[in-house]
Amino acid sequence: MKSDIQIAQEAQMQHVRLVAEKLGLSEDDIDLYGKYKCKISLDVLSKNSEKNNGHLILVTAINPTPAGEGKSTVTIGLSQALNKIGKNSVAVLREPSLGPVFGIKGGAAGGGYAQVVPMEDINLHFTGDMHAITAANNLLSAAIDNHIHQGNPLRIDSRKISFKRVMDMNDRALRDVVVGMGGKANGFLREDGFMITVASEIMAILCLSKDLMDLKERMGRILIGYNLDGEPVYCKELGVNGAMALLMKDAIKPNLVQTLENTPAIVHGGPFANIAHGCNSLIATNMGLKLSDYAVTEAGFGADLGAEKFFDIKCRYGELKPECVVIVATVRALKHHGGVKKEDLNTPNVEALAKGIVNLEKHIENVKKFGVKPVVAINRFVSDSEEEFKFIEDFCKSLDVEVALTDVWAKGGDGGIDLAHKVIDIIEKKESDFKVLYDEKLAIEEKINSIAKEIYGADGVDFDKVALNQIREIEKLGLDKLPICVAKTQNSLSDNGALIGRPTGFRVSVREVKLSNGAGFIVVLTGSIMTMPGLPKVPAANKMDILEDGTIVGLF
Amino acid sequence: MKSDIQIAQEAQMQHVRLVAEKLGLSEDDIDLYGKYKCKISLDVLSKNSEKNNGHLILVTAINPTPAGEGKSTVTIGLSQALNKIGKNSVAVLREPSLGPVFGIKGGAAGGGYAQVVPMEDINLHFTGDMHAITAANNLLSAAIDNHIHQGNPLRIDSRKISFKRVMDMNDRALRDVVVGMGGKANGFLREDGFMITVASEIMAILCLSKDLMDLKERMGRILIGYNLDGEPVYCKELGVNGAMALLMKDAIKPNLVQTLENTPAIVHGGPFANIAHGCNSLIATNMGLKLSDYAVTEAGFGADLGAEKFFDIKCRYGELKPECVVIVATVRALKHHGGVKKEDLNTPNVEALAKGIVNLEKHIENVKKFGVKPVVAINRFVSDSEEEFKFIEDFCKSLDVEVALTDVWAKGGDGGIDLAHKVIDIIEKKESDFKVLYDEKLAIEEKINSIAKEIYGADGVDFDKVALNQIREIEKLGLDKLPICVAKTQNSLSDNGALIGRPTGFRVSVREVKLSNGAGFIVVLTGSIMTMPGLPKVPAANKMDILEDGTIVGLF
Repeated sequence: MKSDIQIAQEAQMQHVRLVAEKLGLSEDDIDLYGKYKCKISLDVLSKNSEKNNGHLILVTAINPTPAGEGKSTVTIGLSQALNKIGKNSVAVLREPSLGPVFGIKGGAAGGGYAQVVPMEDINLHFTGDMHAITAANNLLSAAIDNHIHQGNPLRIDSRKISFKRVMDMNDRALRDVVVGMGGKANGFLREDGFMITVASEIMAILCLSKDLMDLKERMGRILIGYNLDGEPVYCKELGVNGAMALLMKDAIKPNLVQTLENTPAIVHGGPFANIAHGCNSLIATNMGLKLSDYAVTEAGFGADLGAEKFFDIKCRYGELKPECVVIVATVRALKHHGGVKKEDLNTPNVEALAKGIVNLEKHIENVKKFGVKPVVAINRFVSDSEEEFKFIEDFCKSLDVEVALTDVWAKGGDGGIDLAHKVIDIIEKKESDFKVLYDEKLAIEEKINSIAKEIYGADGVDFDKVALNQIREIEKLGLDKLPICVAKTQNSLSDNGALIGRPTGFRVSVREVKLSNGAGFIVVLTGSIMTMPGLPKVPAANKMDILEDGTIVGLF
Repeated sequence: MKSDIQIAQEAQMQHVRLVAEKLGLSEDDIDLYGKYKCKISLDVLSKNSEKNNGHLILVTAINPTPAGEGKSTVTIGLSQALNKIGKNSVAVLREPSLGPVFGIKGGAAGGGYAQVVPMEDINLHFTGDMHAITAANNLLSAAIDNHIHQGNPLRIDSRKISFKRVMDMNDRALRDVVVGMGGKANGFLREDGFMITVASEIMAILCLSKDLMDLKERMGRILIGYNLDGEPVYCKELGVNGAMALLMKDAIKPNLVQTLENTPAIVHGGPFANIAHGCNSLIATNMGLKLSDYAVTEAGFGADLGAEKFFDIKCRYGELKPECVVIVATVRALKHHGGVKKEDLNTPNVEALAKGIVNLEKHIENVKKFGVKPVVAINRFVSDSEEEFKFIEDFCKSLDVEVALTDVWAKGGDGGIDLAHKVIDIIEKKESDFKVLYDEKLAIEEKINSIAKEIYGADGVDFDKVALNQIREIEKLGLDKLPICVAKTQNSLSDNGALIGRPTGFRVSVREVKLSNGAGFIVVLTGSIMTMPGLPKVPAANKMDILEDGTIVGLF
C-alpha cells in the first residue's frame, strides 16, 4: 500500500494558473509562489461583490478517537466528488502548522487519494503565513518588554502580562520561561511563556477578519495585560499594530492549491480548535463562496467543538449560511464509543456499534439545533462489515438522516459520489435554515450554560471562583457581549475525556475564562489546555530527509 | 527631497520574468514569488558548469562612521552603471533581517536611485529565507531539550550547550532566558538565550554551502555542546539535520529582484559581519558569475572585517578570484576619521581630511596585500567641496590608485559611470592576482596574529586565559585547521572603537574563541559582541503602517 507522500509525489499537478482559471481567476488576480501555489488577491472579493454566493457545506465529525475519522480526507474527497459529477466545487481548508508536522503527525493535508498538493510545501513553510503570524506576535511581545525597559509610561504591570510569545515548533522547554535575565541592559526580569503559533490570538484574528484594515483594528484591540492600577492595556497603546498589519499584508491573502484530481482547494489559516475556533479564515470561505458553486469546508475536532464554534463564532461574524453538514464517522470509531478496545476494532461487532452509535445520534441532534440538515458519511475501512453499515444506515434512517458510504481515501472523488449526490439533494430541497444557538448579548454564564446543556448534554455548569472573578472582570470592561469559545477535551461530549459514547448526568467545570478581545470571543477553559506541544520520544523530524535527487522522505 | 520608499514606490518595475530573461533564465529556471521576486533553481549552476565565469568585483569601505558611507548604495549603483555602459552586470547582495528593520534601520536595500525593489517585500518577509533559518535552528534546539527530557542517551551536559535559539526580532528580553520552567512535564530547567536569526550558525552555513547536500552535511557538523564526559556533541547525533535540510530546501535558492533601473539583482543570505563572515551566499555569487559578465558584490562593515573575511573565508572556500575591489569612502567620513565632530562634518576642512585619510590609506594597502587592485569610490554629498575631492584624488594617485566620484544616490547608474569605467579598466588590464592572507593550516594563534598585524596594523595579540583554553580545546578536537572569523568593533581598525584614523602601537585582546564547525571557521571575539539587538526608545516599527489603499509608510 502506498503512503500518502508516495501518492502525493506521483500526482500529475497542473500549473496553479490553470487551477486558478477554474475559479475564473486571471493571472492578475493571483501571486504565484512557485508553480503549484499562489495567493489570491483580496480585490477578487470586491470585484465579485454583486455575484451570488455558492452553497456552503461543513464537514464535521463525531468525537475523535484513536481509530481516526478522516475529516480532512472526506472534505477534500467530497469536493473532488462534486467536481466529478459536474458541479463546480472548491475545498476550503485549514493550513497545517510546522510544530505538529515535526512532532507526531508528520503532515496534514488529507490522505490517500483525497489530498491537497504539493503536500510537502503545504506541510512545511507553505506561503509563509505561519511565519508572518509568528513575527507579528513576537513584534508585539518585544514592544511590550521594550516599553517597560524604556521607562514604562503605560505603567504595564509585568506580573499581569497575558500576551505570550509564540514559535511554530513543538518545544516544551519554552512553555514556561524567564526572560530579561542578565542585568540592566537586558530589561526587567519576568515570567513569560511561548505558545505554538497557531495558538496566537493573531491567528484567530486573521481567521475572523474581513480585510486587512479589520485585521489591523482587531490586533489593536488585543488585551495584552494590565497596568499597575489594574486597568487594561491594549495592543494599540503600544503603537505597533500598524507594523503588525504590514507584516500580515500577504498572510491575509488566501492560498490556492489543488487536490490530487486538480480541483481547486483554498488552504488558509488554522487556529487552535480549543482556545480558538478551529476553522480556516473567513476570507478564504468567502472567496470559496464567491468563486465556486459549492464550497466544502471543515472545522477542528468533533461537532461539539468544531461545528458549534463554526456556527456560533465564524458564521455569526461572517453572516454565513451553511446549507448542509456532513458528519463523518467510522465503524471503528463508533465501536470505540461502544467501549471496544483499540486492538479489537477490526472485528465486526454490531452490539458495540449499537452501544456507541449514541455519540453520532447526539451530534445529529446538535446539528439540527442549528437548523441545518446533516448527512452522515461513513468513512470506509477494509475491516468494516456490511452488517455494521446496515445497522448505521437503519439507525440514521430512524432519525430521518441520510447515510453515505465514502471511500475517498482509496478512490478519490469516485469514492464520494454517493455522498455528493446526497449533499446536493439537501441543498436543492432547501432543507436547512441556519440559526446560531444563543444570543451573544446574554450573560457569559448563560451562554456557557446554553452550550453545555444543549450541545454537550450536561446537567449544568460549575464555575470555579477564579473563573467567576474573570467573568466579572470582563463584564467590568464591558466586553462580555461576545460569543463563547470553549476549550474542552475533544474525546468526549463532556469535559471528561474518558466519558465515551453519549454521557449523561454530568456537569461541566469551568476553571478559567479569558478574553480574546481582538478575535472577538471569550475563551472558556474546562481543564488545562496545552498551548505548546512537546516532541515525542522519536519525533517525526528524525525520519525526515531530503536526498540528493530532491526526493523528500518522512512526511506522511 | 523624496524618501527612499517614495522613490522605490514610484519605480516602474518589470515582471521578474523579464529580469530573469536578462540573465538568460527561462520560466523553468525560476520559481515566482509574486510578480517581482523569484527564486533561481540550483540546476542553473550545473547547466552552466561549462560556461566561463564572469568577473567578480567586491565593494567594501573604510571603517564605518556615524556619517554613513553608502556601501550597498554604491554596489547597486555600480551594477546599474555597468549596465548603462553596455556591460551585462548583476548586483549580488545580502538580504535584510526583520529585527533591524523594526529597530533603528527601517530597511536596507540601497538608497535613493540605487535601490533594489520591491523594497517593502525585501525588507519584510521577502521569500521566507530568514524564517526557514529560524525554523531549522529552533528545530535543533527543540531536539536538544527533547533529547535531554526523554532520557538523555547522549548524556548532553545541559550546563554546556552552546547552540542557542534564534528569533528574527530585536528583543533584548530574550538575550538571557531560563527555559524548562514549570515542572517535570516541561523538561529540565537550564539557562539559554536567543540570538537574532542572522547570527545563527545556520545562516553562516547557508552562505558557505555549495549545494543542499553540502548544507545538510555542514549542519550535521554543528557543535551543539558537550556531554557529561566533556566530549563534543554534534548536531547529526540528534538525527534532525535531514529535517533541517528539508526546511532549507527553498531557502538555499538565490532570490532574484531588480534595481530601480530594471537590472538584475541577486539578494541572498546575510550572516552577521562580526561573529560570522558578513557576505551573501556563495551560491548567489556563483550564480551571478555564471549568469552575468560582471558580478558586483559587497561585504559587511569596513574592509578590515568585511573584505578580509570575504577573501579569507568566502573566496577560500568558494575558490573565487575577485578582480577588482571598490573601497567606498565619503569626504564626511574621512573628516570624522580626522577627528571632526558630527555637527561640523558639512564644513569643508582639508586639514582634517588630510588627518583622516590615513584610514583609507590603510585599507588600500590591505586590499593590495590580497593581490587585488583597488579603486576608491567617493560617494558624493552636497556639502563636499572640490578642494576636498582634489585632495583625495592626489593622495590616491600617490598610491597609484584611481578615484571615482560617484553620485548614484541622486542619479542612479548615471552617477557611477566613471567608477564603472575605472573598474573595467582594472579588470581588462588584469591588474589583480588574488591570494588569501594566511595558510589555514597554521596554528590558530598564528592566523590571528597575521590578521591583527597585517590588516589591523597591531603590534601583536594578547590572549585571555579563557581564549587560550578554548584554542587548546579546538586543537584537541582536531578542528583547528579552519580560517579565522574575527568579531571586532567595525568603527576602528583596532579592537577599540574609539581609535579612529589609522591607529598604531596597539595590541589586540582576544577574549574568547568559538568554533563554528558547521560553517567552517573559528570565531575570535575581541570584545563582547551583541548577538541580539534591542529596540530603541521609539522603534522604527512605531512609524510603520499600511493604509486602506495598500500604501506602506514608515519603511525607509
